[in-house]
Amino acid sequence: MTRRLTIAAAQLGPIARDESRRDVVARMEAMMRQAHARGAQLVVFPELALTTFFPRWFFEDQADIDAFFERDMPGPETQPLFDTARELGIGFYLGYAELTTQNGHTRRFNTAILVGDDGRIIGKYRKIHLPGHDEHEPWRPFQHLEKRYFEIGDLGFGTWNAFDSTLGMALCNDRRWPETYRMLALQGAEIMMLGYNTPIHYPPIPAHDHLQGFHNHICMQAGAYQNGMWVVSVAKAGVEEGCRLLGQSSIIAPTGEIVAMTTTQQDELLIHDCDLDQTREIREHIFNFALHRQPQEYGLITASALHG
Amino acid sequence: MTRRLTIAAAQLGPIARDESRRDVVARMEAMMRQAHARGAQLVVFPELALTTFFPRWFFEDQADIDAFFERDMPGPETQPLFDTARELGIGFYLGYAELTTQNGHTRRFNTAILVGDDGRIIGKYRKIHLPGHDEHEPWRPFQHLEKRYFEIGDLGFGTWNAFDSTLGMALCNDRRWPETYRMLALQGAEIMMLGYNTPIHYPPIPAHDHLQGFHNHICMQAGAYQNGMWVVSVAKAGVEEGCRLLGQSSIIAPTGEIVAMTTTQQDELLIHDCDLDQTREIREHIFNFALHRQPQEYGLITASALHG
Repeated sequence: MTRRLTIAAAQLGPIARDESRRDVVARMEAMMRQAHARGAQLVVFPELALTTFFPRWFFEDQADIDAFFERDMPGPETQPLFDTARELGIGFYLGYAELTTQNGHTRRFNTAILVGDDGRIIGKYRKIHLPGHDEHEPWRPFQHLEKRYFEIGDLGFGTWNAFDSTLGMALCNDRRWPETYRMLALQGAEIMMLGYNTPIHYPPIPAHDHLQGFHNHICMQAGAYQNGMWVVSVAKAGVEEGCRLLGQSSIIAPTGEIVAMTTTQQDELLIHDCDLDQTREIREHIFNFALHRQPQEYGLITASALHG
Repeated sequence: MTRRLTIAAAQLGPIARDESRRDVVARMEAMMRQAHARGAQLVVFPELALTTFFPRWFFEDQADIDAFFERDMPGPETQPLFDTARELGIGFYLGYAELTTQNGHTRRFNTAILVGDDGRIIGKYRKIHLPGHDEHEPWRPFQHLEKRYFEIGDLGFGTWNAFDSTLGMALCNDRRWPETYRMLALQGAEIMMLGYNTPIHYPPIPAHDHLQGFHNHICMQAGAYQNGMWVVSVAKAGVEEGCRLLGQSSIIAPTGEIVAMTTTQQDELLIHDCDLDQTREIREHIFNFALHRQPQEYGLITASALHG
């Protein structure tokens, strides 16, 4: 009998800066109910799904930044997502800005969690590949200050056994780095879930703006195929506070084929019944890691001193 | 002033089992002259370019296998390629089966060399990712016995400074593994040259045969983009001894865009004037390795014990 998981990609349209978490959560809850009605067992939301994509602004006052962060998960405004999960028996992946205190130090991460169909948190991932810059660069039409507002994730790349499958999490820019997929696949991931916020305009090299959608998909299609994994990638889409974000959320098969893709820039659901055993067609043959990889030849990939 | 290199991809049509090296070399020499007349400075030939793709057969007699190998490079039959390089002042990449003796042991590799415009060998690469199987599998319509007939390359992934650029070499199945591109890019490669012989039919999973061209390109396009490298990939094409080989040789820009692709299954030249500084648009920004890679998080990629 094949193992299957029906998964939903819940793309969100723009979230205005003054939109409350309560309103956003209500949009998300409606999508969870719609996804459940269509048979989904697990819903994937975008990166930083609860607010506007705030790293586009330079803030001088830390309180203005921290207003976009969650101190508790669930907190009072996000509790309905967990309640809905338990009520319906449906899981979800959620990206959010995490503020936590460790040994008396405040730490901030770009985080994703996996929540089980009982409404309990199963796993957490903190984004490792933070893009952008860490100083205010006023020449840009908008900032991308993830390197300023977040620390590099300290939990590594991990996988979780849940929903009768092995699930991996990543966030946004992680999808551009082949190491992300490989780290998850080497830990057995059958599905990689990934939320993203990707402006169409890339200020350092605007000549590549028209390739944004192509680059988004080519990294994920190659990553899916080369690792024999399903990839579920979910965007915040549309014009958000004057910044146009790439949509094109997609579900990609272990062959690299896109099996579903959004066509709007609004809240939109994709649902696909994923055959988890399809991963084996790839990983037991052409990309049988044990037979074909040659890790003794890859030393520079983990060498820190030789970069630049 | 931008640095540029005009490079030719010299796809070969089928080579019959009884076709002599002299005839094949004459075809290649004609292509070198044509490439030179069109301004090329460097010509890339396929993998195992001097003979038919012999790993498709199981041979019991080692002498039958060794007949496809070169003991000297150049040898009497390949000397004209080197003479033509020197005469025209044009370089080339050549794939061939290499038989060598080291400390009294006979060793066999699937090899590529880079030859300078003075007709001298600049660099050598021995294929690391050998595909296929090492035992006769009579159920297959044809064999893929690279793991039987060759040893894993012992020279590592390397780059060479030549033609006012930094060049890397790889062979066929290497292009499916993201580690290949990364190893070359971490050593500064601006162009990866790669020859291949790829049957359309993949006996373990025939349901993927129609994706052969898609898989070929998606790996290379992602590898080019994620590493900010030009990729020049050159096929042996057409129906060779009853086995249909994928053509679609291509030249791929550091953006991942295919700038040239063959459309025949015969000897066919692609020529492109590559802007080497285009690599910097990628590698100084979105894929600035020093700024954005996190090698401390990639440990499993070089760990030998955790595969399988």
